Amino acid sequence: MEEQKRTEIGSLGEFGLIDRLNKNIEIKNPSTFKGIGDDAAVIESGDHVKVVSTDLLLEGVHFDLSYAPLQHVGFKAVAVNVSDVAAMNAVPKQITVSIALSNRFSVEAVEALYAGINAAAAHYGVDVVGGDTTASRSGLVIGITAIGEGKKETLSYRSGAKVNDIICVTGDLGGALVGLQILEREKQVFMADPNMKPALDGYSYVTGRQLKPDARMDIIHELKELGVVPTSMIDISDGLASELFHISKASDVGVTIYEDKLPIDKQTFDTAVELNMDPITCVLNGGEDYELLFTIDQKDFEKLEKHADVHFIGHVAKPEEGKHLVTKSGTAVTLKAQGWKHF
Amino acid sequence: MEEQKRTEIGSLGEFGLIDRLNKNIEIKNPSTFKGIGDDAAVIESGDHVKVVSTDLLLEGVHFDLSYAPLQHVGFKAVAVNVSDVAAMNAVPKQITVSIALSNRFSVEAVEALYAGINAAAAHYGVDVVGGDTTASRSGLVIGITAIGEGKKETLSYRSGAKVNDIICVTGDLGGALVGLQILEREKQVFMADPNMKPALDGYSYVTGRQLKPDARMDIIHELKELGVVPTSMIDISDGLASELFHISKASDVGVTIYEDKLPIDKQTFDTAVELNMDPITCVLNGGEDYELLFTIDQKDFEKLEKHADVHFIGHVAKPEEGKHLVTKSGTAVTLKAQGWKHF
Repeated sequence: MEEQKRTEIGSLGEFGLIDRLNKNIEIKNPSTFKGIGDDAAVIESGDHVKVVSTDLLLEGVHFDLSYAPLQHVGFKAVAVNVSDVAAMNAVPKQITVSIALSNRFSVEAVEALYAGINAAAAHYGVDVVGGDTTASRSGLVIGITAIGEGKKETLSYRSGAKVNDIICVTGDLGGALVGLQILEREKQVFMADPNMKPALDGYSYVTGRQLKPDARMDIIHELKELGVVPTSMIDISDGLASELFHISKASDVGVTIYEDKLPIDKQTFDTAVELNMDPITCVLNGGEDYELLFTIDQKDFEKLEKHADVHFIGHVAKPEEGKHLVTKSGTAVTLKAQGWKHF
Repeated sequence: MEEQKRTEIGSLGEFGLIDRLNKNIEIKNPSTFKGIGDDAAVIESGDHVKVVSTDLLLEGVHFDLSYAPLQHVGFKAVAVNVSDVAAMNAVPKQITVSIALSNRFSVEAVEALYAGINAAAAHYGVDVVGGDTTASRSGLVIGITAIGEGKKETLSYRSGAKVNDIICVTGDLGGALVGLQILEREKQVFMADPNMKPALDGYSYVTGRQLKPDARMDIIHELKELGVVPTSMIDISDGLASELFHISKASDVGVTIYEDKLPIDKQTFDTAVELNMDPITCVLNGGEDYELLFTIDQKDFEKLEKHADVHFIGHVAKPEEGKHLVTKSGTAVTLKAQGWKHF
């Protein structure tokens, strides 16, 4: 018998695997305006377009119920999909919710999960329109699909960044990663001695960033009011560096960002130092902040200049200039995107 | 500390749980035309509507890789969602695919799964427009969302059946359940003695029904050509009796079906007898056939009368007449819907 070839998924990495799986996909329907390759797909829909995004969250991989309350898990599952729709410069309108759960979960537990889902639906103004409830042999699995609306002319893709555009980021970065480290540390302490109370005082901002992130729909609405359409946009789920790589690749441009412009919260900074982590590495490679990374034309700078929560971290460069971080001392270092950690 | 209430999910059953979770859901967006409660949600989209259906399939619950080839699993995952869209009398156009898998799977295994997904996408004329690839700690999880198009005037809901409508079913029923029993039997034989070859000769129809079901999009296209809009429709995923209960409840009607009209394939019948199963019980309660159950106005009977693959199994009755099966001997027995087995 011929020996079957076995290639480990880890040898390709997340993006290599995705590229390999998607190479055979052809688009056949005229209503498919944009398929795989951005934060969401785009489907023709009369005078507007629908954008569709989907995510799967698994217990033990994406959340740990030993410290994440089910309400927060439900809220976050919705928020991460809303964030994908936001990153298209579109407005989420509907979600479907599929859950798989074992008999380890009581009806009350499922209701707590749904309380979080419904709270997020209310917060973002989306309707829960369907789903599927099924059994799992072990952990909880949550699949959410979000459907949003936008106008074809004002959607933002990863591919629209132009040389000299200004690179913007919302909020602050690195908090979700630092929060995760704190939660993991306290979990280990608790597992070693169940009588120990977790010491979470003073870490509420970073743990909140991890447990209950908020998708930046506020920014999408403000951009609209200000008349700014980002030339490119992506949400920060894997980390700033990784998302910059996506924009750079899709837009065929280089990027230059400045260390002293990167937004970091004081508690994130202090906690990173306490944990012997480099705060700038947390900002560059910490995922799950669900902030928005976008580029704007220079002509739009004035409109956003005074915005308290939008930070101008660099500019788009020519492709041959590559991707750089300029440190506080003025040295340009090559940016590296961290890969996927799950496999 | 107050003791927390714990209600077992099994005590509510699938439909009880779903009812309880959905009671707090309100619709806020005008574009949400129909939310939870049918095979798919319906969303306004210019001059037509989009229908959206989603399903989660888990290894060990919905498929067993010890006998289901990954290509077939991929094909079936798409087919079951296409079937939900078909059951709305709509045409699927796009799907998103989310998968979670552990490092037990090689790249070649994932490619086999995608080969099945892509084959189904080609078969049904849908575009794979997005998705999510993530890690799992144990088994394979597949989440598919299908988006279809229809016209508001010609969608079929579970709720439209009227007294005296004719109840129709496509294809034949019970095969997928009987096929599953054969596959499970041969798996046990193989596990007891790995040198034994599985004895699947002579069971190819029923095992095919289980492993690679085909959604009845052909019927949807034919109904359109014939100018027939079913007054109600649902796909048969849980079993004929269970689906009749859904239509009965949603339409507030009774149903009468006739044992001698129920379609069963000869191999399904013979194999059921061999396995000491009652063939009619297999037809009534066997799930996963993914045939269509629908009702038509009597005026449309002529148009479908000669259709080789549409069977007229009974009629819609007044709600107070209840739900009955008339046996070959002429006795009317009350129909029972089997619950959900997974929990």
